[in-house]
Amino acid sequence: MLAVLSLGIATAQDSKPMVRMAKIVVDSAQLEKYRAALKEGIETAVRVEPGVLTLYAVYEKDHPTHVTVLEVYADEQAYKTHLQTPHFKKYKNTTMGMVRSLELVEMEAIGLEAKAKVH
Amino acid sequence: MLAVLSLGIATAQDSKPMVRMAKIVVDSAQLEKYRAALKEGIETAVRVEPGVLTLYAVYEKDHPTHVTVLEVYADEQAYKTHLQTPHFKKYKNTTMGMVRSLELVEMEAIGLEAKAKVH
Repeated sequence: MLAVLSLGIATAQDSKPMVRMAKIVVDSAQLEKYRAALKEGIETAVRVEPGVLTLYAVYEKDHPTHVTVLEVYADEQAYKTHLQTPHFKKYKNTTMGMVRSLELVEMEAIGLEAKAKVH
Repeated sequence: MLAVLSLGIATAQDSKPMVRMAKIVVDSAQLEKYRAALKEGIETAVRVEPGVLTLYAVYEKDHPTHVTVLEVYADEQAYKTHLQTPHFKKYKNTTMGMVRSLELVEMEAIGLEAKAKVH
């Protein structure tokens, strides 16, 4: 169910979150496999890693090979920890031959507003 | 505090969320005012509108005039409702002379994973 609260993202220590956008172009012949690997990777990361706050993965309706992931980590250390996890390494290895290009864009937050879904 | 649960976004009725990315270029001379207006607009929308699930507003560190808003609405009707709200109209009127360009890109979700911050 959806909570009626409006919840911004904040970290436990009020340290500065790290926000990034990954712009990925995927081989069209491997799109389904790529999406499955990405979905599994982000679900695992947000579930098991305390410092991975948000991973929103979307693709353009008109250009389904163009994928964007909006990433929010509690801080830079949380991101470095993420890179060493088995699920991230599995995602990278699985998708190595599927990704045509990858651009990483460092972002600053203006506002990160989202409702909470409470199970 | 941060809940330890991993929470995906879903709507109350399991209807299909509408996901969009707004790519905005802002007049550099009015950047601070623009950010303040956008921040107020998204905070209000997520707080008061049941169908506005996520509004993540960020800008590029290396190009601060380049703003992106990742928008998730419960469904298309929720988006139409949003357009008619006083806070959205206020945002549009306030920022009309600040926005150099606006591109709206329709998206499909692969996964929308985020931790919940429980107050």
